[in-house]
Amino acid sequence: MTDAPLPLAGVKVVDLTRILSGPFCSMILGDLGADVIKVESPGGDAVRGQGRIVGGLSWYFAGFNRNKRSITLDLRSDGGKSVLHRLLQDADIVTENFRPGVMAKMGLGPDRLKQINPDLIVVSVNGYGSTGPYADRPAFDFIAQAMSGFMSTNGTRETGPFRAGNPISDLVAGLYAALGAVAALRGREAGGPAQSVEASMMMSTLSMMAYLSSDALASGENPVPTGNDHPIASPYGLFHASDGDIAVSPSTEAICAKFMAELGLSDLLNDPRFDTNAKRLANRPALNARINDVTVGDTQASWITRLNQAGVPCGRVQSMIEVLNDPQVAAQEMVLDVPHPGHGSAKMTGFPVKFSETPLEVRHAAPKLGEHFEIILREAGYSDQEIEQLRAEQMNSGGSR
Amino acid sequence: MTDAPLPLAGVKVVDLTRILSGPFCSMILGDLGADVIKVESPGGDAVRGQGRIVGGLSWYFAGFNRNKRSITLDLRSDGGKSVLHRLLQDADIVTENFRPGVMAKMGLGPDRLKQINPDLIVVSVNGYGSTGPYADRPAFDFIAQAMSGFMSTNGTRETGPFRAGNPISDLVAGLYAALGAVAALRGREAGGPAQSVEASMMMSTLSMMAYLSSDALASGENPVPTGNDHPIASPYGLFHASDGDIAVSPSTEAICAKFMAELGLSDLLNDPRFDTNAKRLANRPALNARINDVTVGDTQASWITRLNQAGVPCGRVQSMIEVLNDPQVAAQEMVLDVPHPGHGSAKMTGFPVKFSETPLEVRHAAPKLGEHFEIILREAGYSDQEIEQLRAEQMNSGGSR
Repeated sequence: MTDAPLPLAGVKVVDLTRILSGPFCSMILGDLGADVIKVESPGGDAVRGQGRIVGGLSWYFAGFNRNKRSITLDLRSDGGKSVLHRLLQDADIVTENFRPGVMAKMGLGPDRLKQINPDLIVVSVNGYGSTGPYADRPAFDFIAQAMSGFMSTNGTRETGPFRAGNPISDLVAGLYAALGAVAALRGREAGGPAQSVEASMMMSTLSMMAYLSSDALASGENPVPTGNDHPIASPYGLFHASDGDIAVSPSTEAICAKFMAELGLSDLLNDPRFDTNAKRLANRPALNARINDVTVGDTQASWITRLNQAGVPCGRVQSMIEVLNDPQVAAQEMVLDVPHPGHGSAKMTGFPVKFSETPLEVRHAAPKLGEHFEIILREAGYSDQEIEQLRAEQMNSGGSR
Repeated sequence: MTDAPLPLAGVKVVDLTRILSGPFCSMILGDLGADVIKVESPGGDAVRGQGRIVGGLSWYFAGFNRNKRSITLDLRSDGGKSVLHRLLQDADIVTENFRPGVMAKMGLGPDRLKQINPDLIVVSVNGYGSTGPYADRPAFDFIAQAMSGFMSTNGTRETGPFRAGNPISDLVAGLYAALGAVAALRGREAGGPAQSVEASMMMSTLSMMAYLSSDALASGENPVPTGNDHPIASPYGLFHASDGDIAVSPSTEAICAKFMAELGLSDLLNDPRFDTNAKRLANRPALNARINDVTVGDTQASWITRLNQAGVPCGRVQSMIEVLNDPQVAAQEMVLDVPHPGHGSAKMTGFPVKFSETPLEVRHAAPKLGEHFEIILREAGYSDQEIEQLRAEQMNSGGSR
C-alpha cells in the first residue's frame, strides 16, 4: 500500500439519489476516491429505515452509503435550491435517479445545469431510459427483471419464470452508471465535452443476456429455460455428494473427459449413448444417474478438492451465511467490519475491484442524516450566520434519525 | 451528435482475453472509444465457433467482439512474444482472463510488464481472485453463481436453488473490470500510479447481494428464497390477467394504496386481515386470490397501462423474442443491425449507457480472425519484410475461420 491518490481523488460528486440503484452508483464513485456529498431531504433516504436495524443503524443503509457525506436540503424551498446550486458550481458530477423529467420540474433541467456549471457531468439512473414509450413509467427492480427477458430464462418449464432473489436490475444499472460517470469524467479531462450519461434498469439487464439474446436474434426462437442444466452442455449441473449437492461445469470436451476420468467413468465416453455432447444431452437423465451413483460415494468437500485439482470447475451452492464465512471471501477481504460511532460496528460486503497500488477502503462510514451539514456549507463559503439560518430551515424534520 | 471525441479516445488496449468475461470487459472499453487489439491464438477465440452461426458468423462472437481489431499471435513462440512486447510498449491497458499465475508463466508477470512499460495498467478478470485458497481453481460462471450465494436466493424452498439462465457472474465481473480499468486510467492520467486491477466472478457476484447480504450479516440468518414474492412486501409478484400474468411491485404503502384503488379494492386495506403490510404478508394467499379475481377481468396490456398511469410499477415477463421486438427497446436503440462484410449483417444488443454528446456506435464490426494483422504490425513499426515473415509464423492455423 502506498500513499498514492485513489483513482477518483479530487473529484466532487453531488449525489441526489435515493434507495438503491443510484446510491450504489454514487457509493462506487466514493469507494474509488471521489468526495460524494449525499443530499437528503430532511426526512432522509428511506433506506435508513429499511433492512435489519442493529443499534439503531440499518446495515443495508450502512453497506450502500459508505464513503459519502450527508447534508439535508429541502429542495422544494428556495433556500435549499440556492445551496444546491452553490454545491453544483464546482462539482464534477451530479448523480440522480428520479423518474425522467423530475429534475427539470425541480428547475434542474439540462440547460439550467449547463448554466450553473458548464463542466458538470450529469449521471442518471432510471427504469427504462428517458426517451421512448415507457420513459414515464415508474420503475422497480422486479419489473425490470420481468421486462428485460431476464426472468424468462430462469427456472424451468415446470416452475415457470423466476426473478433473481437479489435486486440485480437495480445494481447492474447502478454499476453501468458508475462506469459511464468515470468514462465521461476521463473524456472531459482528456479534452472532450462535459456530458450527460444515463443507464436504465431494463436496458442494462437486457445487455447482460449474452448468448441468450444473440441466439434468439440469430434464430428467431426463444431459449428454453433449463434450470440448472446447461442448454447445450452435458454433463453439467448439480450432482449428489454424500452430504449435499456439488455444482460441476465441464465447459469443454477436454474438461468433460477429465471429469469422467476423475469419477472412474471414462469408459462411458465410448458408450454409444454418451460418445458425443449431443448424445449426452439427449440422454442426460441416464448419464446423470451414472454420475450420481459415483458422486454420492464421497463428500462435497472431497469432490470439490479432487475435481478442481483435476481441472474441472466445481463448487457448491453456498447459503449467504456460508459465503460470508467462506475462507476465500475472508482472503479477499470481502466482509468488512466498519465502526459507526454511536451504533457499534456494522458488517458489509467489501470491494470487488482490487487495485494494486491504491487499495480501496472505507474512508467514511455511512453518515448520520445531515452529519456534514455544517462542514459542507463552510467549504461552500457560507458564513456562520448563514449556516445557522440554513440549519433551522433545512434540517427541521431530520437530525435524530 | 457532435464530432467530439469518445470518452476513451486515444486509449490503446492490448486484449489477451477469450471466451466471455474478459471479452465483455474489453468490448466495453472499445465501445467507449478505446482502440482494442484482440490478440488471438492462431486457432482463434473459441467463441468464434459457439452459439448460432449465420452466414458463417457466430452472432454470439459478433455481439461481444465489436469495436475490436484482431491479430493472431502464437504466444508460445519467441516471435509471438516479441510482437506482443512491442504492442505493450505503448499500450495504456492490457486485459487478460487467464487463471491467476498463467501470465507469469507466459513471461508476463507484474515485474516484467512494468519493465516493458511502466505506465501500463494491467486488468485481470478471474474466478475467485488471485490470492486465497481458491485462487488456483478453474472458474466457470455456474460455479461462481453457486459459490457466491446468488443461487441460494433464487427459486423457492420447493424448487431449490436456481442459477440465472444468463452467465451473470461472467458479465458482472467483466463490467466491474471495465470500471476498474477506466478508473485506473483516470487515476494515472490525474497523476496517480499505473496499477494492476482485478475483478473476480465470485466476489463481483457477492457484491450484488444488497440487502440479502446485509440482512444476513446483521441477523446471522439466511434469507428465505421467496421466488417471485417479495420477502417483506405484500401484495407483490405475478398476478393473472385475462391473457397472461402481470408483474406488479407496489414498493411502498402509498403505492400499495394506489394499486388497491385502481383495482377497486381499497376497502380491503381496512379489512383486519389486510390492514398492515405484516398482516398482508401473513395472509398473502387470501389477498392474492382477491386481487386475481379482479385482474383476470382485463388484459395484460390494459393493466400495464392503467397501473403505470396510476403510479404502480407494472410489466410482464417478456420472452427474449418479445423483448427484442419491444417498442421501448427500439426507442432506446438496443438492437443493432451491423454489417459484417462476407457474412451479411448480424443483430446484437446495443449500448446500455447513453452519452449525450458522444453517442456510442459500432465503429468496427467484430473482426475476422487476424483481420488487422498487417495494419497493427505496420503501426507498431514492422517492415514489410518482417510482416511477411511474421505472417507465415503467426497465422498458420488461422485466417479462414
